[in-house]
Amino acid sequence: MSTLELTKQLMARASVTPADEGCQQVLINRLEALGFTAERLRFGETDNLWLRFGTQSPLICFAGHTDVVPTGPVEQWTSDPFLPIERDGKLYGRGAADMKTSIAAFVTACERLLADQPDYPASIALLITSDEEGDAHDGTTKVVDVLRERGELIDYCVVGEPTSSTVLGDTIKNGRRGSLSGNLTVIGKQGHIAYPHLAINPVHTFAPAMADLTREVWDEGNEYFPATSFQISNINGGTGATNVIAGSLNVKFNFRFSTEVTAEQLKQRVHAILDAHNIQYELAWSLSGQPFLTDAGRLTEVAQAAIAAECGVRAELSTTGGTSDGRFIKAIAKELIELGPINASIHQIDEHVNVADIEPLSNIYQRMLVSLAV
Amino acid sequence: MSTLELTKQLMARASVTPADEGCQQVLINRLEALGFTAERLRFGETDNLWLRFGTQSPLICFAGHTDVVPTGPVEQWTSDPFLPIERDGKLYGRGAADMKTSIAAFVTACERLLADQPDYPASIALLITSDEEGDAHDGTTKVVDVLRERGELIDYCVVGEPTSSTVLGDTIKNGRRGSLSGNLTVIGKQGHIAYPHLAINPVHTFAPAMADLTREVWDEGNEYFPATSFQISNINGGTGATNVIAGSLNVKFNFRFSTEVTAEQLKQRVHAILDAHNIQYELAWSLSGQPFLTDAGRLTEVAQAAIAAECGVRAELSTTGGTSDGRFIKAIAKELIELGPINASIHQIDEHVNVADIEPLSNIYQRMLVSLAV
Repeated sequence: MSTLELTKQLMARASVTPADEGCQQVLINRLEALGFTAERLRFGETDNLWLRFGTQSPLICFAGHTDVVPTGPVEQWTSDPFLPIERDGKLYGRGAADMKTSIAAFVTACERLLADQPDYPASIALLITSDEEGDAHDGTTKVVDVLRERGELIDYCVVGEPTSSTVLGDTIKNGRRGSLSGNLTVIGKQGHIAYPHLAINPVHTFAPAMADLTREVWDEGNEYFPATSFQISNINGGTGATNVIAGSLNVKFNFRFSTEVTAEQLKQRVHAILDAHNIQYELAWSLSGQPFLTDAGRLTEVAQAAIAAECGVRAELSTTGGTSDGRFIKAIAKELIELGPINASIHQIDEHVNVADIEPLSNIYQRMLVSLAV
Repeated sequence: MSTLELTKQLMARASVTPADEGCQQVLINRLEALGFTAERLRFGETDNLWLRFGTQSPLICFAGHTDVVPTGPVEQWTSDPFLPIERDGKLYGRGAADMKTSIAAFVTACERLLADQPDYPASIALLITSDEEGDAHDGTTKVVDVLRERGELIDYCVVGEPTSSTVLGDTIKNGRRGSLSGNLTVIGKQGHIAYPHLAINPVHTFAPAMADLTREVWDEGNEYFPATSFQISNINGGTGATNVIAGSLNVKFNFRFSTEVTAEQLKQRVHAILDAHNIQYELAWSLSGQPFLTDAGRLTEVAQAAIAAECGVRAELSTTGGTSDGRFIKAIAKELIELGPINASIHQIDEHVNVADIEPLSNIYQRMLVSLAV
């Protein structure tokens, strides 16, 4: 069965987070036939799967997720998001790009590789979860705990996230920024707008701090990371009535931060700015990921060579974009990159992948498996 | 019938804006018996009433409203808001302070006055509306248009709003600040929080302007007015999702302004601040009242003397607080003040007035009618 057919088979399963809908069983069926050993690791409502072939070093791991984000309004889709369909050279459906194509591509890469080299001189593993798009508490992080516990460490890891920007293979992620979120409540005192001296307007007390926070330069980034970014995502204050001063103001913000600064330093600097303006506030922090990085080296070179040979494209290394499960796996993987199809349509209506990119992606993975075993 | 009884009779009618519930008919019944002529002026759903006694100058007018604000959660009231009841020296119920007591007090003041002086040498009028607490479009402003049209101008006007602060008569309002509102939409470009360079965060573009707006000194006020106040009442931006940069930000703000600055000047200065920060925005203005002022003079002196004689209190002149229908009437009244009971409980659960203040308030009005006719 072609990679395209396997991709469609996975996409036809409506595996919205944390549902797997039998996708992992499809992988087990295909890979047990090649000599892989399957280990199901279910935590809470999350299905996780560890598939391993061989016992030799190095251990090369593909990581991915069978879950997909919700469809959004189905009536806005040109066709049913869970009935994968080809139109104009594209394969449409939820999960096409994020990330059922790369899972299928890796499976068929293993099939061709092991048909060519039955005595492949390395180990291959797949680390698959059904909760990457959700809160991820019971997903990859738990599997990583199990592997670390028993000393099953990874030499090279490829996460199948859709990293390509314009053409297949143009971008490899060799790290990701950290993500630190804050939920700030500025405390004021409600009152009538005609009597502001009897109230404390939290919007006004926060205003100069907000100006300072938005103009602060947190760092300059470095060779691998862009400068740390601070963004307010939500700000809400007011009763709705136009003659009432709000009693409090809620502000949600997020840092995407480089390795030039730590989460602890960012927290201290935010508190310093707030305190400098004598604001009364409550601030809850949430660290959803430390930054991680794989320096340019063996894995990035092998990936770039495979892409160049297959597509004639020079892949750039990048650390931009959102978080991924790579942040968990990096703790037990010597080198880790993310490499997958074009990400332009992910999480959107009419998500799709170029049909012509599907077999080349599988070939890239196969070339990498060949090179890394040497 | 005592002022207390008449107050209760009016309070028992659940005249939530714009309903009058027959309150005005009660006034007509009482005052036609004294020789007043009643003129009903209904506009839209608003009942208005013009009652006049006499044809001589000066024309002394009492202005007020029979409508009341909603009760809020009835279960939080100690007793039914529309079953007026005395407890511990207080009369409880919706409208007790705002402003059925002052209406009743003025009616009984007229009754005693005209019993004493059947040939009272001046004219008395009552201008009553049932939409002061609502949008007021079909209320006092329309009656003022009618009066202006036929040249029926007022010499002295007393608005029965609850102006007293701690003890009856301690405060007379001799003017009110203007009220100018703005509804600002800052236009950005929505995007993923991990790719801020592809988005325009309206919270961030507005931040420095917000700091400037909140620290601006609009004027210093003057002898009669406190400094102009700028307050943001509502600020809302964000999709709720913490990983999305909002496409727009909505900010509602209000000026309470003195006679030292005009609405037009305030608008220009806000636009100048926004434009200085290169913000893309839409801004809708709403002028709900120009500031008005009655200089200390005949009317304020007569009121202060009446209060001093009745209560032994020195009344202060003030222009603070919210808007009132005085802003409309001032256009056809030479002198206008507001004077009524203690306002501490208005628009609240368990609104009340001191029973012991009711007859004295009526006596103050009567003393003023006597003095102003001389």
